[in-house]
Amino acid sequence: MNTGNSKEKQISKAVIKRLPRYRRYLGELHKKGIEKISSKDLSQLIGYTASQIRQDLNNFGGFGQQGYGYSVKYLYDEIGAILGLDKQYKIVIVGYGRLGQAMANYIKKNEGNFHISGIFDVKQIIRDVEFENAQVLTCANLSTFIRDENIDIAVITVPAEKAQLVAETAVDAGVKAIWNFTTVDLELPEDVVVENVHLSDSLHALAYYMQDM
Amino acid sequence: MNTGNSKEKQISKAVIKRLPRYRRYLGELHKKGIEKISSKDLSQLIGYTASQIRQDLNNFGGFGQQGYGYSVKYLYDEIGAILGLDKQYKIVIVGYGRLGQAMANYIKKNEGNFHISGIFDVKQIIRDVEFENAQVLTCANLSTFIRDENIDIAVITVPAEKAQLVAETAVDAGVKAIWNFTTVDLELPEDVVVENVHLSDSLHALAYYMQDM
Repeated sequence: MNTGNSKEKQISKAVIKRLPRYRRYLGELHKKGIEKISSKDLSQLIGYTASQIRQDLNNFGGFGQQGYGYSVKYLYDEIGAILGLDKQYKIVIVGYGRLGQAMANYIKKNEGNFHISGIFDVKQIIRDVEFENAQVLTCANLSTFIRDENIDIAVITVPAEKAQLVAETAVDAGVKAIWNFTTVDLELPEDVVVENVHLSDSLHALAYYMQDM
Repeated sequence: MNTGNSKEKQISKAVIKRLPRYRRYLGELHKKGIEKISSKDLSQLIGYTASQIRQDLNNFGGFGQQGYGYSVKYLYDEIGAILGLDKQYKIVIVGYGRLGQAMANYIKKNEGNFHISGIFDVKQIIRDVEFENAQVLTCANLSTFIRDENIDIAVITVPAEKAQLVAETAVDAGVKAIWNFTTVDLELPEDVVVENVHLSDSLHALAYYMQDM
């Protein structure tokens, strides 16, 4: 996975957060058969200023041509490559309650680069017909499975009180990244990538903004 | 819902995004029986600088006392009030596939201020024993239900191609806010609060950071 992106190491987190959004919109444009777009039109579509867009993309060497705009497909592919979406990743889902099932379903339907290799739960669960290629095991097998299958990412959808233990087990067994859906902020070695989806933070920000309505 | 927080209107989005996180940590401290905390200790716990924390909380008039630190319970409650979590909200879930079920379950278990009044799906669905107080209806009834029940928030977990229509229907019927789990960026009147949970943006940022590992 180490591609030595030394040039990219200085890119701010804010820019990285915006790249998937650029790619998402470019993907939509490509689906509609649109081949090129000016930074002004892209700006109106995405809601960032044209200057912000040029500045963001200049971090990676530009891509635009004066008077022509951006080639939609090329930019889509390039941003994908920057994000590492030209590679394949092996995933385990840990915790197969409603949230785990929803995330497995989401990944299968929307994220072609991420392959669900294993599904884990504390209790023996029934094989899910939707995921016939994934092994379904109890958590006791998590460590061995991650090691044997060279799993890259663990998606954690267990109850909060088990999150830290599950994450440590996954990391000790060799995963490089955790996609964390629990309410817990995990304490893990610095070289582990953690992306938190804190649902409560999002819902509470929504409540805040409702007060002015 | 209009509480006239004119003082708060100038607070930046970045600060608002951090408040739920403060509250989450303070809630954990309170559960552990901890009554007060210095901004330095809070800083080590949350991972923001002590200066950032003081600056953020000063937006709302401070709360800390020199040489004493912050009262955990008081600060927890105050941030809750700022976020509007001293009020109750009525919610509908629109789209009751795996994701809709997961979100209904999440809200019921974790978010006491948000009450699920109705659950909607395109097809007639079986009443969910977990949500015996919520009405379960097909989407054809969405508009009337929102109006009659004075629903505040619509949680949208329908397929992408239906997201815009469902959101417009909910807004026309009177909801003030949309919690959007689809991949679509909704186009809605400016006075509607929209919080997007773009799962792909989070997963793709994770993929990006894995490249340097």
